Amino acid sequence: MSGWLAIAGLGPGDDRLVTPEVSATLAEATDVVGYIPYVARIAPREGLTLHPSDNRVELDRARAALTMAATGKRVVVVSSGDPGVFAMASAVFEALEGREDWQTLDIRVLPGITAMLAAAAAAGAPLGHDFCCINLSDNLKPWDVIETRLRYAARADFAMAFYNPRSASRPEGFVKALATLLEECGPDRLITFARAVSTPDERLSTVTLGEATPEMADMRTVIIVGNSATRRVGRFVYSPRSVR
Amino acid sequence: MSGWLAIAGLGPGDDRLVTPEVSATLAEATDVVGYIPYVARIAPREGLTLHPSDNRVELDRARAALTMAATGKRVVVVSSGDPGVFAMASAVFEALEGREDWQTLDIRVLPGITAMLAAAAAAGAPLGHDFCCINLSDNLKPWDVIETRLRYAARADFAMAFYNPRSASRPEGFVKALATLLEECGPDRLITFARAVSTPDERLSTVTLGEATPEMADMRTVIIVGNSATRRVGRFVYSPRSVR
Repeated sequence: MSGWLAIAGLGPGDDRLVTPEVSATLAEATDVVGYIPYVARIAPREGLTLHPSDNRVELDRARAALTMAATGKRVVVVSSGDPGVFAMASAVFEALEGREDWQTLDIRVLPGITAMLAAAAAAGAPLGHDFCCINLSDNLKPWDVIETRLRYAARADFAMAFYNPRSASRPEGFVKALATLLEECGPDRLITFARAVSTPDERLSTVTLGEATPEMADMRTVIIVGNSATRRVGRFVYSPRSVR
Repeated sequence: MSGWLAIAGLGPGDDRLVTPEVSATLAEATDVVGYIPYVARIAPREGLTLHPSDNRVELDRARAALTMAATGKRVVVVSSGDPGVFAMASAVFEALEGREDWQTLDIRVLPGITAMLAAAAAAGAPLGHDFCCINLSDNLKPWDVIETRLRYAARADFAMAFYNPRSASRPEGFVKALATLLEECGPDRLITFARAVSTPDERLSTVTLGEATPEMADMRTVIIVGNSATRRVGRFVYSPRSVR
């Protein structure tokens, strides 16, 4: 029996946003590997071993998954959202470095609905024009890089989606990010805080940068800042298709 | 009977990438509206009227869909990919401007797997770090805006995803885009051409900017340019999670 590894996105939370491709692959798996709350979304069944692990051990988790696939297991590494957007796919490819034995394994990435797309859909269409996507966590990059990217993104007039805006262990980063955005984009720019979209805890709020405060965000929040033309219509927020 | 309007993403082509939410909504629809090749993906059935229309009539199509919803129809506007990424959602919200009667309708956006996520998954994880997403068509914005955004994106060291890179009617834009990228990012930067991902016509190719030529792209191609750290491992391309 030959093993394989699939790196699958479970979408933002609602099971109706899990693709049939991911569901069918999970149905064939012998082992599911991932961060505890994501593995908790997989229904236990005969013949399936669940391997939940803690946060911040992505490389160890990737190596464990590859080791199992190399011994003939059918392994799914689960991420929330899309596995290629600030999730497990990059960690798995990093674990392949220097391991030619693992590089020839059957490895597939199965896309999913990433949080910013679900958040944008819930708000209207704030990402309907050119945009960028930035991880605001400075666990894996210096804050200077984040600040530089925010400034260039504002000058490019991109709409912006932010992942991991704020955690208990680093509350000050998002304070600085908001100050930078206010300076670059002005107080009237629209900003949408989208928490736990598609789950029972969903909470959506659009304000201006002048009204935004750091505690509007937590680690379950995705943030979308509009471009200079992003506007409200009725209860929706959207970015027009045209630039004049 | 009260009508509604759903703006739904069909994903990049493979039916296994259509979310159960979208499938369930289509099953309840009385009318499906969209660009001819997307409507062609919907199976005909008793009680469902298909309304295919040509490209570049997005606002007319949005108004027709809203008019039907206002008269009690259950209408799905279909886009490929995600409806909020260079697709129909912004056009529908634009059509709501000045129409308070339409603004109170039951309107929902149903997210989908947008082309860049499917392309990234097929290639590995080139969007595994901060990135931007730019529509290279200058139908709705001046070329200067595109060029400015390319330069800022390169200086921010974003990976970049490009939609609509090239069409028969405007072949010269992508020639200029490649020249700008070569100037800003140098000849060794990786670029992935992903055509018709998840369909029988899928074709994937990663080269360097120095090797890239304009005819590697057409309107069915999504392009991903790596950031300065994007690299190959085995047959994959990925962007590392860390910036040092």
